Amino acid sequence: MKISPWAGFFLPTAIAILVPSTSFGQTTPSSVAFVNNLMPQPASVSAAPGRFLLTPQFSASTTAFHNSRLDAAIGETMHQLRQKTGVSFAEQSASGGPGSQLTIAVQGAGEEIQSVDEDESYTLSVTPTGIRLEAATVVGAMRGLQTLVQLVQPSGSEYELPAVSIRDSPRFPWRGLMIDCGRHFEPVDVLKRTLDGMAAVKLNVFHWHLTEDQGFRIESKLFPKLTTMGSDGLFYTQQDVAEIVRYARERGIRVVPEFEMPGHSTAWLIAYPELASDRAPESIRREFGVSDFALDPTREETYEFLQRFLGEMAGLFPDPYVHIGGDETVSPEWKTSPRIQAFMREHQLKDSEALQAYFNQRVLKILTGLHKHMVGWDEILNPALPKDVVIQSWRGEASLVKGAEQGYQGVLSAGYYLDGMNPAKDYYLADPLPSSAPLTPEQRKLVLGGEICMFGEHVYARTIDSRVWPRTAAIAERFWSPEKVTDVDDMYRRLDVVSVQLEALGLHHLSQEDAGLRELAGTEHIDELRVFASVLEPVGFHERYDQQKTSQLTVLDRFVDAVRPDPPSRYEMERLTHDFLKGPKTDTADRDSLRRWFEDMAASVPAVERQMTQSPLLAEVEVRAQQLPGLATTGLEAVSFLSSGTKAPVGWKVRKLAEIEAARKPAGIVRFTFVDPLAALVNAVQE
Amino acid sequence: MKISPWAGFFLPTAIAILVPSTSFGQTTPSSVAFVNNLMPQPASVSAAPGRFLLTPQFSASTTAFHNSRLDAAIGETMHQLRQKTGVSFAEQSASGGPGSQLTIAVQGAGEEIQSVDEDESYTLSVTPTGIRLEAATVVGAMRGLQTLVQLVQPSGSEYELPAVSIRDSPRFPWRGLMIDCGRHFEPVDVLKRTLDGMAAVKLNVFHWHLTEDQGFRIESKLFPKLTTMGSDGLFYTQQDVAEIVRYARERGIRVVPEFEMPGHSTAWLIAYPELASDRAPESIRREFGVSDFALDPTREETYEFLQRFLGEMAGLFPDPYVHIGGDETVSPEWKTSPRIQAFMREHQLKDSEALQAYFNQRVLKILTGLHKHMVGWDEILNPALPKDVVIQSWRGEASLVKGAEQGYQGVLSAGYYLDGMNPAKDYYLADPLPSSAPLTPEQRKLVLGGEICMFGEHVYARTIDSRVWPRTAAIAERFWSPEKVTDVDDMYRRLDVVSVQLEALGLHHLSQEDAGLRELAGTEHIDELRVFASVLEPVGFHERYDQQKTSQLTVLDRFVDAVRPDPPSRYEMERLTHDFLKGPKTDTADRDSLRRWFEDMAASVPAVERQMTQSPLLAEVEVRAQQLPGLATTGLEAVSFLSSGTKAPVGWKVRKLAEIEAARKPAGIVRFTFVDPLAALVNAVQE
Repeated sequence: MKISPWAGFFLPTAIAILVPSTSFGQTTPSSVAFVNNLMPQPASVSAAPGRFLLTPQFSASTTAFHNSRLDAAIGETMHQLRQKTGVSFAEQSASGGPGSQLTIAVQGAGEEIQSVDEDESYTLSVTPTGIRLEAATVVGAMRGLQTLVQLVQPSGSEYELPAVSIRDSPRFPWRGLMIDCGRHFEPVDVLKRTLDGMAAVKLNVFHWHLTEDQGFRIESKLFPKLTTMGSDGLFYTQQDVAEIVRYARERGIRVVPEFEMPGHSTAWLIAYPELASDRAPESIRREFGVSDFALDPTREETYEFLQRFLGEMAGLFPDPYVHIGGDETVSPEWKTSPRIQAFMREHQLKDSEALQAYFNQRVLKILTGLHKHMVGWDEILNPALPKDVVIQSWRGEASLVKGAEQGYQGVLSAGYYLDGMNPAKDYYLADPLPSSAPLTPEQRKLVLGGEICMFGEHVYARTIDSRVWPRTAAIAERFWSPEKVTDVDDMYRRLDVVSVQLEALGLHHLSQEDAGLRELAGTEHIDELRVFASVLEPVGFHERYDQQKTSQLTVLDRFVDAVRPDPPSRYEMERLTHDFLKGPKTDTADRDSLRRWFEDMAASVPAVERQMTQSPLLAEVEVRAQQLPGLATTGLEAVSFLSSGTKAPVGWKVRKLAEIEAARKPAGIVRFTFVDPLAALVNAVQE
Repeated sequence: MKISPWAGFFLPTAIAILVPSTSFGQTTPSSVAFVNNLMPQPASVSAAPGRFLLTPQFSASTTAFHNSRLDAAIGETMHQLRQKTGVSFAEQSASGGPGSQLTIAVQGAGEEIQSVDEDESYTLSVTPTGIRLEAATVVGAMRGLQTLVQLVQPSGSEYELPAVSIRDSPRFPWRGLMIDCGRHFEPVDVLKRTLDGMAAVKLNVFHWHLTEDQGFRIESKLFPKLTTMGSDGLFYTQQDVAEIVRYARERGIRVVPEFEMPGHSTAWLIAYPELASDRAPESIRREFGVSDFALDPTREETYEFLQRFLGEMAGLFPDPYVHIGGDETVSPEWKTSPRIQAFMREHQLKDSEALQAYFNQRVLKILTGLHKHMVGWDEILNPALPKDVVIQSWRGEASLVKGAEQGYQGVLSAGYYLDGMNPAKDYYLADPLPSSAPLTPEQRKLVLGGEICMFGEHVYARTIDSRVWPRTAAIAERFWSPEKVTDVDDMYRRLDVVSVQLEALGLHHLSQEDAGLRELAGTEHIDELRVFASVLEPVGFHERYDQQKTSQLTVLDRFVDAVRPDPPSRYEMERLTHDFLKGPKTDTADRDSLRRWFEDMAASVPAVERQMTQSPLLAEVEVRAQQLPGLATTGLEAVSFLSSGTKAPVGWKVRKLAEIEAARKPAGIVRFTFVDPLAALVNAVQE
């Protein structure tokens, strides 16, 4: 029987947390146990005495403005509360119903088309007799309703909301998640559940990366060949787009479409080779990386095409922003074609960068005519462009700062690339606009926020959830909450809670791992495989690409696709080792937990190795199964030396550290989560 | 560390299975290891020497007839093979491509509208150099392609198909699954993945229960109030219906719609009270069970309405059969209303049954005019009806036999009610037409097959998969394979394999359990809770209804909703106990497995009880957590007495059997899976 050392680890303690350790603003002493599980943390939380009990009589009503969008949000909230508590109160909300326990006072609808400036603030007051939510806009009310759901906590045999007063508004107005649907197509239901998750953690921009070298994913009625020839049949119809836009709006989320140009455009050029810079591709590009095809910036036909295409798209997406990509444009013809060179001389464009700036200016003119603002990746930054474009920085904060200094608005994405497979804490601690950034107050306002990026090389419908969640929730807090909210321990505690909440909303990030392991093993009996897999995680994008040479045709059904980035074992082992090393080594609780941990790992291996003989795909990580028992033994020996105060024999440390280094080497496209803490244990041993 | 006693239990052995134990027909001795994982078992399997290796060069082509439906089926097969093996061969199929390794020879399209008589037979021949699939129809080819996918097995570091020759055709032409979407609505994606699962195990009728007292789930453009007033907004648009019909046809599955009449019709009557037998309901019925509202069989307006409504529906569903329900009709007015009584006298209808028969005759006339055959539950059986109606028997085999004796066609559903929460083996061993049935060969032909029923009182989108699967796969084998295929051990071995295959297709029956447990616990740390839950299963429909008094408004988020019927622990414990009791009790392997099993169960409890203090919903099964350690101790004591040959102290057995009886009593709406084997152990002890 595996009694996990973490059993009860994350359980909220029964002890009253009088003032949540991560709350801000005013706090009032109270005698009520308030377990602050909110993510993102509100700007200000004040606990008060007492609690509000959820009973079958629970009801909600709007006392001022309401519309169908607000009603739907209330209905969804009631539904979630019912599911969470099992209390069968009516799902429907009433308008102006007297005596309701939850009253929602909203001043007005808010903007007809949600802008960057939409007021998202709200106040939420819970007292023993009722709950009151106030907001200037429906979107603000939506944010407050999400907080309300997260406030519900068990109490004895019932569910309650602790009495509390919350004043909340976001730190940044642009809090985005980009999903690349070009390299791998993501079905509509995947996007919908992603939007559900975004709403739960108060993200407000869905950046929809719709075109790539590997696929053109949106139907154009004016240019149908874009999808008939460039999508393998995998694309969003205009009806799908309308549905996603509607679904997002019901959750207070803007949809910013991205049409990559002039590079990353192989899929356009298969359909319309006449738009290419002389040389057009012959088929959809299956390889990843930077292609050397680009739209031709020198022909008027290109702009006529874009005028019509973007005009059509502008009608589908109400958001005032359109993203034109603009990154990684490489076209040898821009340097070799006499025709293009002549054009450049004529227009005094000295190099490819200048030619692309010319292209961007032309596209900007089209977008301006369509009443749209332009967004693009770093590369579009050029003094030739006016100041109302938004730069999405993938190159790093320095690039964002540089833009702000020149007066450009910016959104930071460097630091938030999920395919780096970094632990949540790394993303969490990356601030889009640290106090230390060398910017004036005016320049600081130009930093609109941040965007999380999920590029699509190595994800598809059955794995994307576990790549996006729950890490995205931690980053969402970074974008919403005050800068000083940086307690990593508390973040991981709350991340476990919100992760399960997200699963209840319909995301599959937790269950996809077990499902993948079952498929690999060909049986539902995966007790040991689950333990083994719990200490392995996918390597980052580049390492995978190097090891596997992936293309769009690579089947994403490997062990690396089943396991999750930043599984609990990473943080838990870090914390356990840290506690053991900093405390008296004779503390038997920490020592025994560590021992059991290493014993469990080693014990899982024989059964896993048996399953590997029956599964070629599973056998791809056999090296890891061979390494694990040795690493576990090292851990047990280190704990034994440390807790008994014995010295290790001469040469032990060198040998063990070499073994750990060997385990860091690429194998099976996965890496162990615990080698750093293990090395720390070995290093602490005296020889 | 839990090393499950079942580790490797279900792994196919490395020893060559020369002739699969459950195959039939000709068999050829062979030296190739063929692990027969097929479900359903084909009519005839002959193993041959050698194997076909799956390589990146794998390709498929059609050599005779092909159409888009066949091409889609081949494309889906190639996709599944890629996912299963990770081998990146092209997904597309070629028509008439030379040198393909899989050749598919189909004689023709088959019926334009798939009928009960559609030819589903196929032959599949695998040799070391190629695979050949032959079928008369596209549907036959689909069945063969499913067999092909299931044949793929690991071999060293590769995947292969064993050389084999299969001749296959179904035992029964009507192999259905009914999903009740009336009591709880099931979204379109749930139905689609259900159809995927049905296709994988060769079921061919999706019986769509579309109307109930609790909801009218299909859009009528002629009578829109049916859904605006009778569905809570949860219904299928006509576009959804077209999509489901198309999706099913792409998988060789017929769609038979059911419109319940004249009873179970509350939802109709809210919208159109003028159709009621005098007294109309005021709101959607939330309670389950039999209502006392019914359509009025005595008014011409009723038939005018049905003529138009069924005419509209007939245009949506191409299948030649329409199900009119017809069960459980109770209307007090039929006995009390002077107007209705007068009508009955006038038409010489002596009782309510005769009145309903009159109604059925009138409806039959409408359906006949629409070129549809009528299907109904047992209650429609009446000599007044012509012989081309089909009786779906929920009352039992006797009723089916009675119908056949009178010349009616029948489909058996008694014995296949999934909400009974019976173990797979019970359903598996229920034969729709045992050799012993007292029928002539002509009468036997009238038994068309069987239908599995998933009634909707206690399921919704997040739990339905685990109620339907994998048990439905075992029943599908009953309907397809020869009568003599009845090896329960082998069925459970294969069910584990097919269950994981079904999950790979997108069903969530395995992952829903863990997801539910995580929600209940509010954390992803459920190692112990998972062990505890593994020996508990939902009680049957009636017991749940009695314990919980459920209605449509009951929130289905309890522990009972998370756990699965017939979890592996049931069969495993039965088998382990059986082996231990029949062998020498000193056999240490069985003894140790049993010991470890009981120890693991007991060890899970403390952590689970801690989690219960934090989760009111989880605490609802606290009684089971209190009972489990005692039962485990009893098991350990029994094993100890038996293996040491010691006698138990006087009174021990009585006390222990009483404890076991107490554990059988209702508690927490769940029951233990292992009390029967535990009682067998106790009973085997000598006092």
